[in-house]
Amino acid sequence: MSVYTTVGHDQMQEWLKRYTLGQLLDLQGIASGITNTNYFVTTTHGRYVLTLFETLKPQELPYYLTLMSHLARHGVACPAPVADSTDQFSSMLAGKPACLVSCLQGADVERPSAAQCRAVGEMLAQMHIAGATFPGKMDNPRGPRWWSATAPQLYPRMRAEDAAMLREEVLFQDNHRFDHLPSGVIHADLFRDNVLLDGDRISGFIDFYYACNDVLLYDLAIAVNDWARNDDHSIDDERAAALLTGYQTERKLSTEEKRAWPVMLRAAALRFWVSRLQDLYFPMSGEMTYTKEPQVFQAVLSAHRTRLHFWV
Amino acid sequence: MSVYTTVGHDQMQEWLKRYTLGQLLDLQGIASGITNTNYFVTTTHGRYVLTLFETLKPQELPYYLTLMSHLARHGVACPAPVADSTDQFSSMLAGKPACLVSCLQGADVERPSAAQCRAVGEMLAQMHIAGATFPGKMDNPRGPRWWSATAPQLYPRMRAEDAAMLREEVLFQDNHRFDHLPSGVIHADLFRDNVLLDGDRISGFIDFYYACNDVLLYDLAIAVNDWARNDDHSIDDERAAALLTGYQTERKLSTEEKRAWPVMLRAAALRFWVSRLQDLYFPMSGEMTYTKEPQVFQAVLSAHRTRLHFWV
Repeated sequence: MSVYTTVGHDQMQEWLKRYTLGQLLDLQGIASGITNTNYFVTTTHGRYVLTLFETLKPQELPYYLTLMSHLARHGVACPAPVADSTDQFSSMLAGKPACLVSCLQGADVERPSAAQCRAVGEMLAQMHIAGATFPGKMDNPRGPRWWSATAPQLYPRMRAEDAAMLREEVLFQDNHRFDHLPSGVIHADLFRDNVLLDGDRISGFIDFYYACNDVLLYDLAIAVNDWARNDDHSIDDERAAALLTGYQTERKLSTEEKRAWPVMLRAAALRFWVSRLQDLYFPMSGEMTYTKEPQVFQAVLSAHRTRLHFWV
Repeated sequence: MSVYTTVGHDQMQEWLKRYTLGQLLDLQGIASGITNTNYFVTTTHGRYVLTLFETLKPQELPYYLTLMSHLARHGVACPAPVADSTDQFSSMLAGKPACLVSCLQGADVERPSAAQCRAVGEMLAQMHIAGATFPGKMDNPRGPRWWSATAPQLYPRMRAEDAAMLREEVLFQDNHRFDHLPSGVIHADLFRDNVLLDGDRISGFIDFYYACNDVLLYDLAIAVNDWARNDDHSIDDERAAALLTGYQTERKLSTEEKRAWPVMLRAAALRFWVSRLQDLYFPMSGEMTYTKEPQVFQAVLSAHRTRLHFWV
């Protein structure tokens, strides 16, 4: 259950006066979601999703919400934040910064088909293209500087051979620079649970709260490492190829990007291996205890280190 | 049939490269519509409406399209224009300025119920509230100055008694000023054929190409004169009251607005009587020959002149 902050019907009705969304008909807590509190809000106008941000601060929200608004306005499938009568996308509710976004059809899929991977790739490319005119800027808080600073804290807690592998990979990535590759707005967390599908059609990318400005190819590698991952953590060539093909129908990769691809897949695996180790060994006080397994991305990284990639 | 400008599949596919809407699947001309050419455009992302503007100039479009975008962003039910990769809502296609907007469910209704009138009133109030933060400005091209200038050209063409009535009404309106009433963005043409309904729910106001900045109560009067109008051109009290009640659930009318109401209903009837007379006697060259009957609004005006209005 992920309703950490409770909102009552009357309280919601009062807060809704900030908006031009009609009268409140129904308010339902949403069980899924790990970090924030979410509700379905039904008004005389339609259905919306209310998010109460449990950790993000009010001043951190405009980047994410104006980005989603920008992307939705360009036809990229994602929730569109609703502006209130002061033209803001967020304000305080029950002591938390809160926003309303449009409610999308569809559901996430655990075992995506190649066709679905292709659709994800296509939409990701379109998100990258549409992001080009977005004026906001946000550094990637989970980039090379972060993992280089974080890894040394992890080594002492890890088994010697795992620590050696991590140390080696951080060093390897240090020796590869991606500054010359096309960059822009990336989702940075486009896992299967952050995409709603309606059959083979993308009904929306969701959860933009890791979005930032970084190398576009890195976003693609993060997506492939999850969407094409088998249960044994190996990468399925067919789904990986489908995602890349879908991406390239909208945005062709350059020769330099193709050359960087095998290293980028490792960087994307490293990022989640490190963050999951950090969550495991140094859980934030008051944070949810739902920790994802670091081993998954260690295994993905391992696989990438021992094989060549000819998909592109 | 209202496809005045033909767009081919290949031409559309090429133009769609400006957008991040996926691949073109289908293109269908839309038979309804009087002034512009419209197509349904289905892409791998979804369904959109393409409008080719037959008379508006490219520089006139930003006001209307950014207004619709603003309103949609605030949850007011209306089509949301899609921005292209240069962040523009319109560009040239087949020699005409053109735009894509989201495709709404629903259909217009010829004989609205009181519940539907209520919903229209509610949404209109919300449009007025949401419009308060819209920065664009557009004078009303069909306001008192326009009808005062236009009426003298009509008198010689009209039957003497009709001309006398028109002259009298223009004079009457000249003696009433509305500058003190709340003003803002108005739709200015909220007839039954410009609202899509899905049961009793408003799925969208459409056709914003008369929208402008003017007195809000004038917009309400235009809507009541159409939505509450019976076949014999009299006004149905129940539907009029329902529309006003719906409006006031979201925006209460002031004492001054209530006082101005009977005169405003006459002003709103006068505006359409005059424009329809103008279309009849002075059709624009190259304009569509589909002319609406001026008598309807003469009759509405007549009815307003001879009765008192206690609905508010």
